[in-house]
Amino acid sequence: MSRFWSAIVHRLKPYVPGEQPVHANPVKLNTNENPYPPSPRVLDAIRHELGETADTLRRYPDPTALRLRETVAKYHGIHAEQVFVGNGSDEVLAHVFQALLKHGHPVLFPDITYSFYPTYARLYDVEYHTIALDEAFAIRLDDYAAPNGGVLFPNPNAPTGRALPLADIERLLERNTESVVVVDEAYVDFGAESAIGLIDRYPNLLVVHTASKARSLAGMRVGFAFGDAALIDALNRVKDSFNSYPLDRLAQAAATAAYEDDAWFRDSCARVIASRERLSAGLTALGFEVVPSAANFVFARHEGHEAAALAARLREKAIFVRHFNAPRIDQHLRISIGTDAECDALLDALRDVIRGGVA
Amino acid sequence: MSRFWSAIVHRLKPYVPGEQPVHANPVKLNTNENPYPPSPRVLDAIRHELGETADTLRRYPDPTALRLRETVAKYHGIHAEQVFVGNGSDEVLAHVFQALLKHGHPVLFPDITYSFYPTYARLYDVEYHTIALDEAFAIRLDDYAAPNGGVLFPNPNAPTGRALPLADIERLLERNTESVVVVDEAYVDFGAESAIGLIDRYPNLLVVHTASKARSLAGMRVGFAFGDAALIDALNRVKDSFNSYPLDRLAQAAATAAYEDDAWFRDSCARVIASRERLSAGLTALGFEVVPSAANFVFARHEGHEAAALAARLREKAIFVRHFNAPRIDQHLRISIGTDAECDALLDALRDVIRGGVA
Repeated sequence: MSRFWSAIVHRLKPYVPGEQPVHANPVKLNTNENPYPPSPRVLDAIRHELGETADTLRRYPDPTALRLRETVAKYHGIHAEQVFVGNGSDEVLAHVFQALLKHGHPVLFPDITYSFYPTYARLYDVEYHTIALDEAFAIRLDDYAAPNGGVLFPNPNAPTGRALPLADIERLLERNTESVVVVDEAYVDFGAESAIGLIDRYPNLLVVHTASKARSLAGMRVGFAFGDAALIDALNRVKDSFNSYPLDRLAQAAATAAYEDDAWFRDSCARVIASRERLSAGLTALGFEVVPSAANFVFARHEGHEAAALAARLREKAIFVRHFNAPRIDQHLRISIGTDAECDALLDALRDVIRGGVA
Repeated sequence: MSRFWSAIVHRLKPYVPGEQPVHANPVKLNTNENPYPPSPRVLDAIRHELGETADTLRRYPDPTALRLRETVAKYHGIHAEQVFVGNGSDEVLAHVFQALLKHGHPVLFPDITYSFYPTYARLYDVEYHTIALDEAFAIRLDDYAAPNGGVLFPNPNAPTGRALPLADIERLLERNTESVVVVDEAYVDFGAESAIGLIDRYPNLLVVHTASKARSLAGMRVGFAFGDAALIDALNRVKDSFNSYPLDRLAQAAATAAYEDDAWFRDSCARVIASRERLSAGLTALGFEVVPSAANFVFARHEGHEAAALAARLREKAIFVRHFNAPRIDQHLRISIGTDAECDALLDALRDVIRGGVA
């Protein structure tokens, strides 16, 4: 606290990201990173950009990230003017709150969802209402019929992993025409249907993606929004009033290369999905109740064991999972999908804890 | 324009960065980039981070950039808690406006200065007053005695290049104790005195730096703020409500390495300063009036030639300088310091234009 702080600073509740363990060889299943490296083309592209002397680094990057936007637009069958690029989808979402969600009515999002949403709302003084998931942790879009300044949800949802059918999203769009509908598809590539194909028909639809998950580039901070050019224009106006050059040269090169290697992407997604099904079966066999997941994580609880205690016991074994101390979900663990070997290490450790002693 | 835009979007006046020429071999003297590459240690550090497979890129970077902050703190003889890191000093300044400059009084900054300042003020609805530079384009800090929500100026100033003595800044700090004084030292390494040494004595002093200029890393987007821990805390609270991970892994590695090679830094600054003096003499010989510069650019006018026309003629020769179509300075050109060869190419072209024909 300080008298030099702007009033807003006192009201903020900053987001707390998952722990970055300092262990030498952690089994890190707490921040939904990809267990497989990015495409080898990413390394080639970065090396090419660096050249022999890294001389290009003295020059500003392209402030419009045109080549990256063109590559990703082509990949999704849309136009570059329908693509916004930011420093990770977190920065993209922040700009979305400021540029598109501040109107006379509250923004609506689920009560159990990405915990950064209420943080953004406070940062920009955007009113919001949360809508409860049903008992099975499913989003019921029919509950979002109230007058609103925007509707926002992840598909699949986080931290539950549950996906919505595209037909439900289209039904919402048919009904909700006067405010922006934001579908945060950070995890869509692991089993849900993307709404990108609808952006030409619904000028109020914005779809948010990230290169952090399925593209294995969490370390490079690249995110996207796809939508009607007028929505993208609003995001660019905010971005160009904030920071002209949010993506450095190597991030632009890396993300472009990642979208040019579709086979690598499909293969690593398929491996993660196979490991998820295997891990879900293993957890179920240990007595866990596992929410059906279309993401690169599972959300699970065990009737006989406190989730916080389980997470602490795993941590002692250098296995990191995420526990949220929040209403309705404080008995669940969110477990990122690792390699099969990492998933086995987790299952072995849980077996010890559950069979071996008090948790 | 769209009904989906938040009200603020309609009021923005986005910043327009200098042109990124598409010419094959431009003489690019329009965005104050360093003519020399970054330290070879930067390349080594990036290659080390990438390893054989770029596997680390699948992991999130350190959200606190601790190693980078510790390195830069040590370099400046301060503590890591006194260092904030952002995605270029543009992002740092944006957070400063939101976190520290929104109070009951207007922020004060010069009428001729970095043109992003009023853009930030509009983005966060921060009231501001501009204070006129004197006839010689000098900032007179005695003119900043009005009640204010903060005082902000670059030292050296941009686009004029004029530096303030540290004693003037300290006199302002002695008088202006109730609001934050932000000294934007993007260009300080080319000839001005840094105020970093004063942060322990003035809890309202914030000094902003960038790795884009003297460290040759414009392409990597790294900026800093130095000040009392309470000011840094405010910036972190805003940053952690906006984007947990603004600096990617390669940017953190690159900037850390740049601060570990002081000899390279000193040498390239000395070369730029020598070229600046040489270019200033050359421009003076051609009849230009050159503002004394402590930066890596000069600000110059020619009585016999319209600045806009000169810039256009240079552009035809693939030489890019910056012209601002703004009150009081529309007859000036801002010319970044290139290599001596680039400065000579500029002088040759200007000689042709001035002696050869109508401009």
